[in-house]
Amino acid sequence: MPSPRPEPAGGKAPPCVILAAGRGQRLALRRCKPLTRVLGLSLAERGLLTFRQAGVRRFVVVLGYRAEELRRHYESVAARRRLEVRFVVARGWERGNGVSAAAARDALGDGPFLLAMADHLISPGMVRALLARTTDRREGSLLLAADRHRGALFDPADATKLRLAGDRIEAIGKELTHWDAADTGFFLCTPELFSALERAASRGAFSLTDGVAELAREGHARIVDVSGEPWIDVDTPEALREARRRLLAEIGKGAEDGFVSAWFNRRISRRLSSRLAETGVTPNQITVASFAASLAGAGLLGFGSHLAGCAGALLVQLASIVDGCDGEVARLKHLATARGAWLDTILDRYADVAVALGVTFGQVRTGGDGALTWLGGLFALSGFLLASYVTKEFALRHGSAYPNDWINRLKRRDLRLLGVCCGGLIDQAFAALVALGALSHACVAGILVRGWRTGDACS
Amino acid sequence: MPSPRPEPAGGKAPPCVILAAGRGQRLALRRCKPLTRVLGLSLAERGLLTFRQAGVRRFVVVLGYRAEELRRHYESVAARRRLEVRFVVARGWERGNGVSAAAARDALGDGPFLLAMADHLISPGMVRALLARTTDRREGSLLLAADRHRGALFDPADATKLRLAGDRIEAIGKELTHWDAADTGFFLCTPELFSALERAASRGAFSLTDGVAELAREGHARIVDVSGEPWIDVDTPEALREARRRLLAEIGKGAEDGFVSAWFNRRISRRLSSRLAETGVTPNQITVASFAASLAGAGLLGFGSHLAGCAGALLVQLASIVDGCDGEVARLKHLATARGAWLDTILDRYADVAVALGVTFGQVRTGGDGALTWLGGLFALSGFLLASYVTKEFALRHGSAYPNDWINRLKRRDLRLLGVCCGGLIDQAFAALVALGALSHACVAGILVRGWRTGDACS
Repeated sequence: MPSPRPEPAGGKAPPCVILAAGRGQRLALRRCKPLTRVLGLSLAERGLLTFRQAGVRRFVVVLGYRAEELRRHYESVAARRRLEVRFVVARGWERGNGVSAAAARDALGDGPFLLAMADHLISPGMVRALLARTTDRREGSLLLAADRHRGALFDPADATKLRLAGDRIEAIGKELTHWDAADTGFFLCTPELFSALERAASRGAFSLTDGVAELAREGHARIVDVSGEPWIDVDTPEALREARRRLLAEIGKGAEDGFVSAWFNRRISRRLSSRLAETGVTPNQITVASFAASLAGAGLLGFGSHLAGCAGALLVQLASIVDGCDGEVARLKHLATARGAWLDTILDRYADVAVALGVTFGQVRTGGDGALTWLGGLFALSGFLLASYVTKEFALRHGSAYPNDWINRLKRRDLRLLGVCCGGLIDQAFAALVALGALSHACVAGILVRGWRTGDACS
Repeated sequence: MPSPRPEPAGGKAPPCVILAAGRGQRLALRRCKPLTRVLGLSLAERGLLTFRQAGVRRFVVVLGYRAEELRRHYESVAARRRLEVRFVVARGWERGNGVSAAAARDALGDGPFLLAMADHLISPGMVRALLARTTDRREGSLLLAADRHRGALFDPADATKLRLAGDRIEAIGKELTHWDAADTGFFLCTPELFSALERAASRGAFSLTDGVAELAREGHARIVDVSGEPWIDVDTPEALREARRRLLAEIGKGAEDGFVSAWFNRRISRRLSSRLAETGVTPNQITVASFAASLAGAGLLGFGSHLAGCAGALLVQLASIVDGCDGEVARLKHLATARGAWLDTILDRYADVAVALGVTFGQVRTGGDGALTWLGGLFALSGFLLASYVTKEFALRHGSAYPNDWINRLKRRDLRLLGVCCGGLIDQAFAALVALGALSHACVAGILVRGWRTGDACS
């Protein structure tokens, strides 16, 4: 059902044509390829959301094989994620993906448009790289995102290769023996592409590559180097596993991670997140579950017995690991929200209070000197909260986050909670708590000094 | 000693000529007028610092009466405050301030310059208003900061008046009966002023007003309306008192003040600050003194006796009042520093910890049930610290400060400390502490909800 009207106003980014007409026989799955799920989302949905993340809001999806099934899926994604998706059914799509691309012509205006494959995973960075060239009038009629890193290619034999002169494409094809870069299947085009596809078709060549080769012959096809960006053509079950692996590797990179997060928690939370992503569990539910686990752990630590203490200690560490999952699942499923992050931060602080309280209470129950024990608990609790406070205050006053230096990492909650856990396991939770409290106060002092030194003497 | 070289490069703001040559007979003080101290700083120093606050760094001071005494003073200010000050001694200054102004000619380049009176207090806002017109080529050769509010004039009889046509000055003089605005004695000039002063002098008229009148006759004098900005010609002992009053009124305006600060603490702290400003006490010393008073108050509250509790309670409230003085004195004496504000904020949090601890300990000593009392203390302490934390987190996530709404005011430390003080006086410090803790936690919950509501559902 091609729509004859040109793309509507609003949204500066050009529209994106997504080719979802082919059969994708190699993947050998029962569902059609764009419906294949990776970590809880179909390739189709991941595609749209990657573009949305880079600011693209309007899409033209070209359908062919199992058109109605795909259309229903895309329509449900568009409604849920608030995107504008129109559909074109490509007659003769079986002849080649050039025919599918040509079918989008009537759904587009005279301006530039993006062109991507429904079964490729690309990164928002690649989309931004091409969008940045939209208004560059010096460009040729076609820009192809290309990867010069041969090592990054998952299946070099199946890749479409490019021979280049500078950034100009000299030759394109799967069979090139001397080549400089790989075709990522993602383009910024002008309507000139359609004439090129027609010329190729008149010679009996029906693939998109044939159309690009036409433009390349005229010197009208160039590349944008996106080497280093993660992308993959999800063409086989092996590629599907690799796509999953790459997605997981991306989401666990917390520049703000402490020592324990980076070296221990993330390794487990990432696996957990990959399972959670396949379910319907939302990031906020994970946040609340982690909070509940902290409270339960704090309660068990408060019993005062070694056995309950061990259980509580492990639960507290589990909560610390799960605390990484909410953000990971949110990023994996494009569900990250400002309010989710806000809830997470505040509940973390209350969980810290609960753990300090539980450990202190447990010590009081086992007969530690009342006042001294409570004083120790107050000391630790105030250290934890002030350590969280002081970096926020620093960031507000300096206009940039406190650097993730060793002081910052020593005061993070991943280390605190692991410390309490280890202490609890050897029946020394309280000693660990007080030691961690002292560490936190020392970090506050360190940050205070740093803030004093970097602060202007004159305002 | 006029310096023949033009003003050096660096610093975009034009230089400022300060007329400090006159005798100032009306003030009837033993010292010469620019040396008169207001709230700890001489008029001379206040003038330079007001300009510095608006970005002016280079000055030409015109001396005459008691030139050596004034030069030594200005030199010491320049060294202490890191300003570039050059001096010109005006021969014949006794004839009128136009002669003094003319003496600055050789110390200036061909560009525009500011011209101000050493014995006027003006506001940084007035300086910025004139600086904003520096590059406006459409302007006439002289711009005069003028005040249209007759009510704001401290001594209307003595004011130099202006008759205007639009923003053009038609007539200037003290004797005008029909007038539209008052001359604030602050100008943005070009070297054309010097020719105008020469022409006036050739007719035997030697005041600056005579020079301005020359330019006005040629249509080359305009005003910049600075109505509403605080300024005063410190010409009499009464004006000196008024200047003091106005300065104090400016510094106590805390947009971030809580209820108790606004309605009670500020009234006392402002008086205290006016005394402290006259001494050599630095703002950071006041910060530390307030912190020490909090610690001492917390210690007394920890004794557990009603008498010690009363003393501690009053000390805590005193600390709360003095906590306002550091910022006030810093603003009064142009000593505000980023590091001072940073130290103040962190010590405030530790003082909060100390007070909660002291009150709790006092309750434990008077035989309250140990565990429950300590739990109450932990509850209150965590509420106080989280209340401080949560607005910082909010500001960081939203990119703007949490609004000073009633939730914010209810959680501020001025209210907490007054609450503890009142509780202590009636021997109910602990009950007050727990109630204030509950209030703080409720405020945290309120801010959490507000952050959730205003947070994006989609990031």
